Amino acid sequence: MIDKIGRYDFLAEPFHSDATRHLLMICLGNDMLNAADYHATDRGFGMDYLNPLHRTWVLSRLAVEMVEMPVAYAEFRIETWVESVMKYFTFRNFRILDKFDETKVYGYARSIWAMIDTRERTMQSILDVRNGAICDYVSPETPCPIDKPSNIRIKTQPELIKSLPTVYNDIDVNGHVNSVKYIEHVFNLFPLSWHEEHKIRRFDIAYVAETYFGDTLHFHQEKVNDREFNLRLMKTSGEGDDEVEVSRCHLVFD
Amino acid sequence: MIDKIGRYDFLAEPFHSDATRHLLMICLGNDMLNAADYHATDRGFGMDYLNPLHRTWVLSRLAVEMVEMPVAYAEFRIETWVESVMKYFTFRNFRILDKFDETKVYGYARSIWAMIDTRERTMQSILDVRNGAICDYVSPETPCPIDKPSNIRIKTQPELIKSLPTVYNDIDVNGHVNSVKYIEHVFNLFPLSWHEEHKIRRFDIAYVAETYFGDTLHFHQEKVNDREFNLRLMKTSGEGDDEVEVSRCHLVFD
Repeated sequence: MIDKIGRYDFLAEPFHSDATRHLLMICLGNDMLNAADYHATDRGFGMDYLNPLHRTWVLSRLAVEMVEMPVAYAEFRIETWVESVMKYFTFRNFRILDKFDETKVYGYARSIWAMIDTRERTMQSILDVRNGAICDYVSPETPCPIDKPSNIRIKTQPELIKSLPTVYNDIDVNGHVNSVKYIEHVFNLFPLSWHEEHKIRRFDIAYVAETYFGDTLHFHQEKVNDREFNLRLMKTSGEGDDEVEVSRCHLVFD
Repeated sequence: MIDKIGRYDFLAEPFHSDATRHLLMICLGNDMLNAADYHATDRGFGMDYLNPLHRTWVLSRLAVEMVEMPVAYAEFRIETWVESVMKYFTFRNFRILDKFDETKVYGYARSIWAMIDTRERTMQSILDVRNGAICDYVSPETPCPIDKPSNIRIKTQPELIKSLPTVYNDIDVNGHVNSVKYIEHVFNLFPLSWHEEHKIRRFDIAYVAETYFGDTLHFHQEKVNDREFNLRLMKTSGEGDDEVEVSRCHLVFD
């Protein structure tokens, strides 16, 4: 049987890197989504198999903790595996490491995924796909030494700092705003000088609702301390609509 | 001696694809920039060699003509070579094709590059680098059956349709707005429904000036006909500044 852990190699492409020559988080995030999909595809439950059955995976939570980001031209590996499976959720972990030196770990990530019906956008039983084949690949013993995705408690409605209409490039193969595109937008709330002086150490994002083309995103920020921020992302679909929560983020910079 | 033509393989990553499951032009564009850099690096005049000498390549013009865009999961190849070299400019071409079937060509591109001093942002002689080593790799005989980058004539100042402050993710390793990020912004001027109904056939972009973090981009659009558009991109650096031209685009959809 195929290994429980999938290993996929990537390159920190120079033109996927920022002005500090470090890989952009949107690129690392999409590399992780791609690695998750390749892992699932290689084991029979990837998007390519699910989509004709009107099913797809949607990310529910993601927590990423980085020691450092790969620098332009670095060859790195993403290992990914399923830690556990429940009827409606799977817990998938990631380790990001140097391709040639296993002891050099860039970071870890934990994620929670749901499976939805692509027509009704409702949650579906993961165990019904290929008679629960995913259960054959669960690896609870593989270590992932970072905290679980946090609940991201925001007590009051924080300050609105930006509103952004969704555009063509926001929308991914699943027909909604791409999960890591939210992270790009959140990183863009901070000026270039901030990113030159501070590196991201950990971020958590919890997805509450989907955003579609035509919606406008509203970013509300709560400053926890000098290095720590909560973001509450809301959407409106039309003029005068009440804002609806779409996701929450928690960012810790060094 | 190493071949004049560089060949680099890419995957149309599902999470680099749009809602129609076709690779995003920003991703193909960055893949082409990366292929250009790998080709140059493998031959001794890539960014990694140039940057410590305070030199870098900047894109001056780009013309892309697509038969079709790769669909999610397609493995494709980018071939790139230098067609000719002058003191201040090189002409570099691209062929985008199926990795496994040479007869399946996705498209071609032509580009013009200058070399600048990264401190003064002034043009430098390309022939002074490694005693003109680039001349050993010129391949005028390799066919590139598309028109040269067009001059993009815009008679009057067209209508302002959008203004966009630059953000962290716009700025690349060269410290200015990434060349293909302009193209992402231009594609985003059209709604998702437009991209679902129309595929890009050709676009030309001419770069006039660099844009830096903190500048605001202004998009002026001239509709040539139902399928053809000219865009004039301007920037302002401060409140009340006159707009300065940064680039011109010409787009043809089918």
